[in-house]
Amino acid sequence: MTIYSPRDFRALTFHDATPRFADGTDTPRGYLERCLATIAAREPVVRAWVVMNQAGAREAADASTARWKAGQPLSPIDGMPVGIKDLLETRDMPTQMGCEGYRGNFPKRDNAGVWALRQAGAVVLGKTVTTELGGAHPGPTTNPFDQARTPGGSSSGSAAAVGACMVPAAIGTQVGGSIIRPASYCGNVALKPTQGAINRGERQATSMSTHGPHAGSIEDMWLVATAIARRAGGDPGRLGLFGPELPPPPRRPMTLAVMEAEGWIKTDEATRAAFEAMVDALRAQGVTVLRRADHPLVESFERALDGVQALTGVITGWENHWGFRNLVAANPDGISARSKAVLAAAEKRTPDDYRAAILQREEMRRSHEALAPLVDAMIAPASPGPAPLWAGDVPGQPRVPRPTGDAVYNTPSSALGAPVVTIPMMAVGGMPVGVQVMGQPHADAAITAIARWMVGSLPAVSV
Amino acid sequence: MTIYSPRDFRALTFHDATPRFADGTDTPRGYLERCLATIAAREPVVRAWVVMNQAGAREAADASTARWKAGQPLSPIDGMPVGIKDLLETRDMPTQMGCEGYRGNFPKRDNAGVWALRQAGAVVLGKTVTTELGGAHPGPTTNPFDQARTPGGSSSGSAAAVGACMVPAAIGTQVGGSIIRPASYCGNVALKPTQGAINRGERQATSMSTHGPHAGSIEDMWLVATAIARRAGGDPGRLGLFGPELPPPPRRPMTLAVMEAEGWIKTDEATRAAFEAMVDALRAQGVTVLRRADHPLVESFERALDGVQALTGVITGWENHWGFRNLVAANPDGISARSKAVLAAAEKRTPDDYRAAILQREEMRRSHEALAPLVDAMIAPASPGPAPLWAGDVPGQPRVPRPTGDAVYNTPSSALGAPVVTIPMMAVGGMPVGVQVMGQPHADAAITAIARWMVGSLPAVSV
Repeated sequence: MTIYSPRDFRALTFHDATPRFADGTDTPRGYLERCLATIAAREPVVRAWVVMNQAGAREAADASTARWKAGQPLSPIDGMPVGIKDLLETRDMPTQMGCEGYRGNFPKRDNAGVWALRQAGAVVLGKTVTTELGGAHPGPTTNPFDQARTPGGSSSGSAAAVGACMVPAAIGTQVGGSIIRPASYCGNVALKPTQGAINRGERQATSMSTHGPHAGSIEDMWLVATAIARRAGGDPGRLGLFGPELPPPPRRPMTLAVMEAEGWIKTDEATRAAFEAMVDALRAQGVTVLRRADHPLVESFERALDGVQALTGVITGWENHWGFRNLVAANPDGISARSKAVLAAAEKRTPDDYRAAILQREEMRRSHEALAPLVDAMIAPASPGPAPLWAGDVPGQPRVPRPTGDAVYNTPSSALGAPVVTIPMMAVGGMPVGVQVMGQPHADAAITAIARWMVGSLPAVSV
Repeated sequence: MTIYSPRDFRALTFHDATPRFADGTDTPRGYLERCLATIAAREPVVRAWVVMNQAGAREAADASTARWKAGQPLSPIDGMPVGIKDLLETRDMPTQMGCEGYRGNFPKRDNAGVWALRQAGAVVLGKTVTTELGGAHPGPTTNPFDQARTPGGSSSGSAAAVGACMVPAAIGTQVGGSIIRPASYCGNVALKPTQGAINRGERQATSMSTHGPHAGSIEDMWLVATAIARRAGGDPGRLGLFGPELPPPPRRPMTLAVMEAEGWIKTDEATRAAFEAMVDALRAQGVTVLRRADHPLVESFERALDGVQALTGVITGWENHWGFRNLVAANPDGISARSKAVLAAAEKRTPDDYRAAILQREEMRRSHEALAPLVDAMIAPASPGPAPLWAGDVPGQPRVPRPTGDAVYNTPSSALGAPVVTIPMMAVGGMPVGVQVMGQPHADAAITAIARWMVGSLPAVSV
């Protein structure tokens, strides 16, 4: 294993490479070849990719090289190699969703976001590993900083590919904690956008899922998000991502509040100590940081979140259950025992259970909305500790319930439809842990500006 | 052609057949065989069906017969033969969407609503013709009352199958006017439910589409809607259909308002006269009927609807354009010239155009909401006249823009997310024209009760 230090780790970035594409001292093709060299070196252990289209990527990179040479790039991410989580359809590669029931599935269509990335000139390099159907059952990917640990999930491959410096950005999806948690474990920056802000294309089955970028830098994270949103817009009926095309400048917040949710009591001592050091650093910069005891609205928000993790499970389980049932009907061995257990739980529920859950979620959203005049954003650890050890299921033993780690700090933003940016500002025992910044719906740009200020103005913490 | 008279026409009903299943004087299998005999007689001209699974239907009807015999029906619609619009996936039949690009498409999955119908014991008999991808390009179906006329669209086959007494109910879908208009032309009762009230399963790509029943009676219409909603609930994140399992009892409204929208000026004189006779009949029963000149909130609602038909076109065109683009990319001849023109128009638009349209739609919804304390429901003709003549495209001639008729009276409820029930209360020149009753979102049961009162208490009108 590597000893990760947020101060010393240099992630792969793209935004600062494009001036050299413009002046001819580097090219998108050269950039891609360096990515491919890193992949060749690290993929045998990290296993972030399901499939790559290297020939197509080289062709796209050459076309991008010509556009930069002509002074006519299609966007600031023209030539950027990106990975696409293998839940999203891509015209040139299969979409197998980490699931036996989708083995060989090759619909030859582009997801709206993939289409937008191609329109922006990005180089769609390959499909990254997802847990089975985006759920709890893990794929083969290992953590790039310690192969004995999980990369997190469900966006395992996207997080690990960025953490291993194979690509500057990759697309993940989150319905519970599937972008922010693996980003935390793998030392990524990532955006889980406002619900509906980035068009999910064919993937509209769940009411809490979002698609968003994992990246080595906030700048690239934002450029990827806006490159998609400015071409594909938001989900059907939604207003789409608000904000400038270029990364919003750093902005110091006046007031933040700590969100404990159901996570703080599950957070290990070392991670708590690291996070408290972050809070101290914020205060040292003149930022007011409220805790739940400091204001009744923060306390009532925390109380409203009681049960949020179970609630998100009920909602998503119900929303996915026809899909799961159809898979099992077509192929009884098409999904894992873990996913079958999720299906069995969902099939015990009724539309009235679901309706009650949706109404409880509405109450949570109202409590969050009430904080808008009080705080600029909420902060919290992005996971209750560093990536857990994971050696695989042991035949005959009970299934580990959360082999890709605990989404306890992530389900609140999923339920709230709220945007989150995570930044790799902490190390605990030589492994990365993120700090997340959560805003009101449509405050994606505002929290990006705050996160950018934090990265630039606060010392990273290693404990 | 038949001369249609709403007073004399006897549609096929199911709710009044089940007592005979219970006492053994009839059986679901016998009911199905009568449906199949009608289909055999009329299908060569009407052409409502794409494919049927008669063997599967007979098997399902026999199972239902056994349940009724044992006194254990699964629901009030156990044994009901139903048609499914060929946009929805069915495990046992292909789903070809009236589109060359989907020829042979057979995903072997059940749409959530189809799954619910099977759970309720309904007999899924076959797939009914849809216009291409639910758009303007027509299929082969003819109007059951005059084969020279369109059945309307896009739910052409569902409306015609019910109008021809082939089945007591069939599932349609509406994104512009695709349930209520063909129901009007074919003498059906139909429900276009509140947006999100009936789970669309895999069909979540558009923000204004709903799935709903065409039926020969209000009772069967309601029973089908609740049979689905009580098992599959609403769309992801939505509360689902509210109301009792059994049809709500008839209820006389206090106050109705006439919605002119962009339709009244396009309505032919005879249809206007028929509708005015309906208004007179309502007033004769003591119902207050407001017109736009009678109240400033009605007038401001009408003004807010200016441009609604074009607006729905912009929104749906944008939401569908990746799907269309992927089809054309995979198969340049996969969609018609009509649909290609829709794609070309959509691809000229931007996410900002879409965002502006969504915000305008929000304003329309607010104007509608403002009417809630004032009126029990809005009424209007369900189409600006009877079904137009349609002889097919003529090579070398310009394409008829609306071969399945004009959705001008239907796009308001689609944009508003509001529920509509249409009832076959008028005949114009020997062809059916519906009267539609539109309520506030989630007032599906309330407008069903009003429509049921109208059917039972008002004289039908023939002009």
